[in-house]
Amino acid sequence: MEDTRYDIVGIGNAIVDIIGRCDDAFLSKHSLDKGFMRLIDAAQVDKLYGVMGPATERSGGSAANTIAGLSSFGGKAAFIGRVADDQFGKVFAHDIRAIGVNYDTPPAKSGAPTAVCLILVTPDGERTMNTFLGASTELGSGEVDAALIASAKITYLEGYLFDKPEAKQAFHTAAELAAKAGRKTALTLSDAFCVDRHRDDFRKLVHRGVDILFANEKEITALYEVNSFAEAVKAVRGECQIAVLTRSEQGSVIVTARDTIDIRPKAVANVVDVTGAGDLYAAGFLFGLTRGHSLADCGRLGSMAAAEVISHIGARPEKPLRELARSQGLIT
Amino acid sequence: MEDTRYDIVGIGNAIVDIIGRCDDAFLSKHSLDKGFMRLIDAAQVDKLYGVMGPATERSGGSAANTIAGLSSFGGKAAFIGRVADDQFGKVFAHDIRAIGVNYDTPPAKSGAPTAVCLILVTPDGERTMNTFLGASTELGSGEVDAALIASAKITYLEGYLFDKPEAKQAFHTAAELAAKAGRKTALTLSDAFCVDRHRDDFRKLVHRGVDILFANEKEITALYEVNSFAEAVKAVRGECQIAVLTRSEQGSVIVTARDTIDIRPKAVANVVDVTGAGDLYAAGFLFGLTRGHSLADCGRLGSMAAAEVISHIGARPEKPLRELARSQGLIT
Repeated sequence: MEDTRYDIVGIGNAIVDIIGRCDDAFLSKHSLDKGFMRLIDAAQVDKLYGVMGPATERSGGSAANTIAGLSSFGGKAAFIGRVADDQFGKVFAHDIRAIGVNYDTPPAKSGAPTAVCLILVTPDGERTMNTFLGASTELGSGEVDAALIASAKITYLEGYLFDKPEAKQAFHTAAELAAKAGRKTALTLSDAFCVDRHRDDFRKLVHRGVDILFANEKEITALYEVNSFAEAVKAVRGECQIAVLTRSEQGSVIVTARDTIDIRPKAVANVVDVTGAGDLYAAGFLFGLTRGHSLADCGRLGSMAAAEVISHIGARPEKPLRELARSQGLIT
Repeated sequence: MEDTRYDIVGIGNAIVDIIGRCDDAFLSKHSLDKGFMRLIDAAQVDKLYGVMGPATERSGGSAANTIAGLSSFGGKAAFIGRVADDQFGKVFAHDIRAIGVNYDTPPAKSGAPTAVCLILVTPDGERTMNTFLGASTELGSGEVDAALIASAKITYLEGYLFDKPEAKQAFHTAAELAAKAGRKTALTLSDAFCVDRHRDDFRKLVHRGVDILFANEKEITALYEVNSFAEAVKAVRGECQIAVLTRSEQGSVIVTARDTIDIRPKAVANVVDVTGAGDLYAAGFLFGLTRGHSLADCGRLGSMAAAEVISHIGARPEKPLRELARSQGLIT
């Protein structure tokens, strides 16, 4: 492989999270599916925000969280995703740059405001997400810089991009550019409902164009329309080079054509907010992979990063992950 | 006293806090006085925000924090303060209304954006604040609703309002309306540098127009230009009906014409962020006072609320203070 300037370039929706607490009755009352993501429009944002409790704002976005995590490990990362020229847009750009990520997508000067996700965290730490995609859907193929893609070992894409045609096109452009440059492509399926909305496209993509796939149990069973995790493992084996399947408190499983590697979960004393668990698992895994660690060690790095992020509110790491990994003997 | 609809109406700067962590070397490098508040302009916001690390946004503002705390205790509260018609303005309005506070000040449709405070939290939990007053200074006497002031037992004012002429005028208008309606007026001195900027005005106001004064040790010694806490106690006694002097880990002292009541501090295992400690002390104290508790019990309610807010990031309570006070036997 030629010299690469970046370990990973991530492409995803650029979102500011608005995080509040609620009880299960609140979710029922407002017909919200616990643990899932749904898309809402501006009017629905106003309505839900109007009834939810006091909140905290933090930068988010699935691939953006992963990229922030990778940077916290000491990896070299870039991000492509669109905000608007507003206060939340400035917040998003600040936070991702402040952690050392190259982020140059110009903010949209007109159109919808920066994307927000109203995240409701129940007492069990589970999160229910309500996303207004706003300016993030204005990402087009024009923003996908071929030189940037060619300069990264892995291009990391979030499935959520499939929810709008322009972003989906940008996604495909990026995957093709990465392949053409001889780089690897990684995909996270994002959400089981998102998989339901785009099942055929995702299956084709995994079969043809993805080297590394990230999915949780609900997503991978939804992708192959099977009823058990074991069937899903069977279905995905060989479809891509590496499938990384996360199972919350049951740990994770790494599936290659030949091997199945079980990774025990990292114990967390107090689960505060599971938002970002999958994103940060991917960060640790990809950091390990770009640095030549064994797949088992990649999984352990992923588990460690996921454990950190679920122990506090918000989907970005609060502790420097490089130091944390060193203190646990996972890297030197 | 006639029937009152509100326990407290608070008037202050309507601010969104942007909270990040830094080390002491960062403060030195940028010539920031640890533990104090300084006013900055829009260009300085851009500069400091550009160099500080990833952050979290939460609604803040000194009097607004107190009012949110009072509401969390179950008190009836209203707030007057101005935001702009922008994303941070919506965040501020949402958070204060979501906790049950009446907030009707119309957002400014033009002019400066909503006020922000860049708060740098050092590893010892101390906070250093950099405030861009923005739209909050556009609060004028016209926003001070005479009927609202007359309907509250106590009008609570923050000293920070003195930093801009229009807001200072609104402050005086509110104090006069409260006196005319036979209501009480409370003042917090806000910050020792703020006291230095407006010492003569504050002294006159405390002597003439304030019933309840809140100040920390640095502020009260700055007000009377004395070198010791004992001298400050002597100087303030009799100047107003009740002076409430907070001393961080040394607890607090309540000074009336006749009595000096020492309140022991509430122990906090892990001080995470002291932002809002004084604001929440005032919330607990004022709640107790409006409900007829003894001054010592008012102090204990204040200490409890301060202890809650310094145990996490952000200046608004995360636990319902009414339940917390009940669980500690402070209220029934």
